[in-house]
Amino acid sequence: MKKILDLPTPSLVLDLERFEANLDKMSVFTRERGIALRPHAKTHKCVEIARRQLARSAIGICVATLAEAEVMLRGGIRELLITGEIVGEPKVSRLIHMVSRAPETMVVVDDAGNAQELQQAASSAGVRIPVLIDLDIGQNRTGIQPGEPALRLAENIRGAKNLELKGICAYAGHVAHVVGFENRLASSRHAMELAASTRDVLVKNGHNVQILTGASTGTYNIDPGIEGLTELQSGSYVFMDVDYRRIGGQSGAVYEDFAPALCVLATVIHRSGKKAVVDAGLKAFSTDRPFGPEPVGVSGVTYEFAGDEHGRLLLENPTREIKLGDKLRFIIPHCDPTVNLYDRFYCVRGDSLEGVWPIMERASGPPYF
Amino acid sequence: MKKILDLPTPSLVLDLERFEANLDKMSVFTRERGIALRPHAKTHKCVEIARRQLARSAIGICVATLAEAEVMLRGGIRELLITGEIVGEPKVSRLIHMVSRAPETMVVVDDAGNAQELQQAASSAGVRIPVLIDLDIGQNRTGIQPGEPALRLAENIRGAKNLELKGICAYAGHVAHVVGFENRLASSRHAMELAASTRDVLVKNGHNVQILTGASTGTYNIDPGIEGLTELQSGSYVFMDVDYRRIGGQSGAVYEDFAPALCVLATVIHRSGKKAVVDAGLKAFSTDRPFGPEPVGVSGVTYEFAGDEHGRLLLENPTREIKLGDKLRFIIPHCDPTVNLYDRFYCVRGDSLEGVWPIMERASGPPYF
Repeated sequence: MKKILDLPTPSLVLDLERFEANLDKMSVFTRERGIALRPHAKTHKCVEIARRQLARSAIGICVATLAEAEVMLRGGIRELLITGEIVGEPKVSRLIHMVSRAPETMVVVDDAGNAQELQQAASSAGVRIPVLIDLDIGQNRTGIQPGEPALRLAENIRGAKNLELKGICAYAGHVAHVVGFENRLASSRHAMELAASTRDVLVKNGHNVQILTGASTGTYNIDPGIEGLTELQSGSYVFMDVDYRRIGGQSGAVYEDFAPALCVLATVIHRSGKKAVVDAGLKAFSTDRPFGPEPVGVSGVTYEFAGDEHGRLLLENPTREIKLGDKLRFIIPHCDPTVNLYDRFYCVRGDSLEGVWPIMERASGPPYF
Repeated sequence: MKKILDLPTPSLVLDLERFEANLDKMSVFTRERGIALRPHAKTHKCVEIARRQLARSAIGICVATLAEAEVMLRGGIRELLITGEIVGEPKVSRLIHMVSRAPETMVVVDDAGNAQELQQAASSAGVRIPVLIDLDIGQNRTGIQPGEPALRLAENIRGAKNLELKGICAYAGHVAHVVGFENRLASSRHAMELAASTRDVLVKNGHNVQILTGASTGTYNIDPGIEGLTELQSGSYVFMDVDYRRIGGQSGAVYEDFAPALCVLATVIHRSGKKAVVDAGLKAFSTDRPFGPEPVGVSGVTYEFAGDEHGRLLLENPTREIKLGDKLRFIIPHCDPTVNLYDRFYCVRGDSLEGVWPIMERASGPPYF
């Protein structure tokens, strides 16, 4: 049986015991709180993981892109919610093809022009697209404004015979990483109340809001208190990362509700003085956060990016010797864009390799022509 | 015939006219200066591009990793130099397998212990590994110190019967992006003189230094003046990026020796007020530089990262209207780690698609077991 130390480096290593514990914990939590779970797969981009989430009571899977939706569907994953707007060709045609095969596939809409574009394509193809109104509750990204603008969009959708309004998607990405539980709670309440009040306006005007979806891993235990929220779309809880650990938990400065299950394995390829260099750099860890990866099982060591394939370890006061050829594990700074840098998860139990799970294509997927 | 606007987004679009002009310019330049070119393929990770570089007089190809070397060799690309140290298993076994099939493959060494590890493996397999001494000329990453330490390593290599010293690899990564031509010239001279003097010490002691390789796209026209430099390993010149354009050229504040040939195509998926959102975020552009991508053909627009799949455009004073569904092109911030986020180049001439070239696997490549 292959062991961790047999793996090529840099590689992505998933600790199955921790991963399964994370899945179990979220599954038990959502069942106890009486809220549905449709976890976000942009975190893992992996059919094998989506299967395990569904097997543990998830009601479906969120994806960010059409390419992700297509791979999931090919892998037999159903009940998909595409959380990014589908605008223009060739995307609209691809969406129609998806909905023809999986009519339950939902997509978000935040613009009357886009609703009309979808309506025309759906009408031509003779399909009906289930849609959610994408609401901007403070992230200032996509989404229509709460209240009156959202109501007008719902009226537009009501006029589009091949679109079926299912509810509201209200993701507060700006709240997910607010440091300190009480701060996060206040921010999330503020954001989610915009969603709840918009839901009320829509319902009062006779629109269907059977779904109100939102929440991140940072707010999974905050947002179920929001009146009318029907499902959580948290994603990062399966892996965790440095970014989430630093936001703090309900009790304690480190957010430990879920265990760090994913790490990058790297080899020390240079050693001199107070410096070690590992074979994991800009192409092994995402660089979108102002902090780097954290070595596991040793402290007094700081990682610095040092090129595409290089990370420099400053050995200030290492608690163990670090030698040429050593294999080190690192908790990743930010899980979603880091997973995106790999082709597979090496899944281990203890230090034995139990499986290799493919990560789907990068970017927009195959060309489709 | 497919056009740019038929492409899925986000995608990587290579302008073949500019790309070919860049290849031609570097080819003519190196021939005129009487220096060899072994361009770095970590920039493009693409066999099709390596073929075109070799067809235009490159003497071989540099790669950063074993995985890159293996894909190149499978694609028929020979005369490879692996510019990263190969330390520990399973890498050493994979290197031996490479060298058995392509005995000219060179690898860098910066440590006597690693030299011994390679010697033992090569001896067991009955192969001989051509090696270059990796010299630290100021980047403070890998590499042995110039002068006496390098000489001692050369003596070690002389004692290793299955290693064959071919010369020195002296890459000054810290110089590549020094802003201002005169500053860059001074920095590069300072760094490369350490390489030249170490070469002299080695030669004086009877060591073979038939190769002295170095130089980036930032110093391609500086380093040929270094006595004893035999080949350039510049890589980014094929594509260019925001990072290189801002360092300044020999005449002028923008470095325009090579044309920006690569861009990311994105769709506007949201439009409201002074904001547009495109479907290209952290998974579409590398985030390792303190500046973002630059939209092509429009000014008064600033890009901000806004999530895995989102970029926010602030429309301060746009020189043209930006509408929902528009497809925009962006010059990428940093080419190497951005290319790494895609599976293929869509190669266009004018606005017609002429080819689709695959980009190789991410990270450490296939598991090999």
